[in-house]
Amino acid sequence: MNSTTLGLFDSGVGGLTVLNVLQKKFNHWDYIYLGDTARLPYGTKSSNTVKKYAEQIIQFLLKQKVTAVVSACHSASSAILEHNLKAAVPLWNVISPACESAVGVSQTGRIGVLATQATVNGNIYPTYMKKLNPKVEVFQMPAPLLVPLVESGWIEDPITNLIVMRYCEILKQQNIDTLIMACTHYPVLRKAIQRAFGSQVQLIDPAESLALQLEKEGYIKNSEPSQNKFYFTDASENFLINAKQILNLSSYPQIEHVDLVNH
Amino acid sequence: MNSTTLGLFDSGVGGLTVLNVLQKKFNHWDYIYLGDTARLPYGTKSSNTVKKYAEQIIQFLLKQKVTAVVSACHSASSAILEHNLKAAVPLWNVISPACESAVGVSQTGRIGVLATQATVNGNIYPTYMKKLNPKVEVFQMPAPLLVPLVESGWIEDPITNLIVMRYCEILKQQNIDTLIMACTHYPVLRKAIQRAFGSQVQLIDPAESLALQLEKEGYIKNSEPSQNKFYFTDASENFLINAKQILNLSSYPQIEHVDLVNH
Repeated sequence: MNSTTLGLFDSGVGGLTVLNVLQKKFNHWDYIYLGDTARLPYGTKSSNTVKKYAEQIIQFLLKQKVTAVVSACHSASSAILEHNLKAAVPLWNVISPACESAVGVSQTGRIGVLATQATVNGNIYPTYMKKLNPKVEVFQMPAPLLVPLVESGWIEDPITNLIVMRYCEILKQQNIDTLIMACTHYPVLRKAIQRAFGSQVQLIDPAESLALQLEKEGYIKNSEPSQNKFYFTDASENFLINAKQILNLSSYPQIEHVDLVNH
Repeated sequence: MNSTTLGLFDSGVGGLTVLNVLQKKFNHWDYIYLGDTARLPYGTKSSNTVKKYAEQIIQFLLKQKVTAVVSACHSASSAILEHNLKAAVPLWNVISPACESAVGVSQTGRIGVLATQATVNGNIYPTYMKKLNPKVEVFQMPAPLLVPLVESGWIEDPITNLIVMRYCEILKQQNIDTLIMACTHYPVLRKAIQRAFGSQVQLIDPAESLALQLEKEGYIKNSEPSQNKFYFTDASENFLINAKQILNLSSYPQIEHVDLVNH
């Protein structure tokens, strides 16, 4: 292999925020992104179903000759860890790097997790962090309104601040010193979240934790600047609008449709 | 046919609110409910994809010998109207009865539609109401936060009131006299919505409009009280919790899993 192509996938466009973080840091790799928009969201589906979907996507990405696969989706990452899923190339997820960062930086061992209801129900963050260090105490808070608030563009907004404060208040009472923003959309609200906790709580962005781990792998820098390829399993205009926004493009990205079910 | 069995479907549990309204009114029919939870939500998917899903579900319900099929889902109803989908039994949807009610009761012809972003983008409510009466003026307002607010149980809540007021304010400025609550979850917030508009605006619940139309059909009353059967394409615990709440049951409902993709 004389080049690096990272295959990223998510249930929708949210994983593009992970692509953004990685591409900023590693701008001489190529990226192939698959958004399984025909079957999103994964969060409300059973772990077995999500595992089956992840396997189909990994097979598709392997055919595109990727160097490594990144599950940018918290639900898929949870299923990968739970079922100990492997692939023919290194398979990265967004949960274990975030857990390792949090357990590493927390001084008091009291760690908060802000996540979707499905991620909270899955209990993967507490389970994984306790494996790393049985002494940590993990406090989860489901925050189901944050994704639609971000998608509504209500970023710097008094209503958003009220909602963020209500979610964070319960975690504050637990005296956490570290918080994992355990959903691809949440880092967009980093300012509001930091304000709610004050500067004494350290925020962990899972995409940044993943980037730190990938850095150590020494993947080859390609001779040409980064190229992106986007696949979606169902393309509605809404997704093109969101993708354009997240990737900060001047026009809609070129996307290809792929039918995974009949692939 | 000497009995009536209504087949209802939705992308998830939201359509159970429609089942509730119908069952209250017609408590001597049987009901078969299918929630396509493996593929929800429909709102973010293209109309062709949703049409394909609806066709598969209708075929499944026909095999269960239903008297009529009700699409309790606004996205599926939109696809049914757009593609003029027919079935071997009467096929009802939640959009056209609501439009007929609204056009019928509005005095000024200025009608508001509170809906999800996807329903607004699909433009089906304005299109259909203008077919009924070209003189009506329809004002749509996407309200993406209302579903997660209802699912969070923040029903009588100052934050919910603020959000409802923000959505309704724009419609108020258009001097509407009638509002369609164009999503299965919204009637739960009826009080807050009515408060935001004041009593001069008439609220239309599509499930109630549908019930009025079904009443005229003279479907047979079964000799036994209502029986329900629930099918889901993917059963996560979350859905059982929501279904139990919506149906106001003391324990989880009995559900059966059905695989529509490989059916």
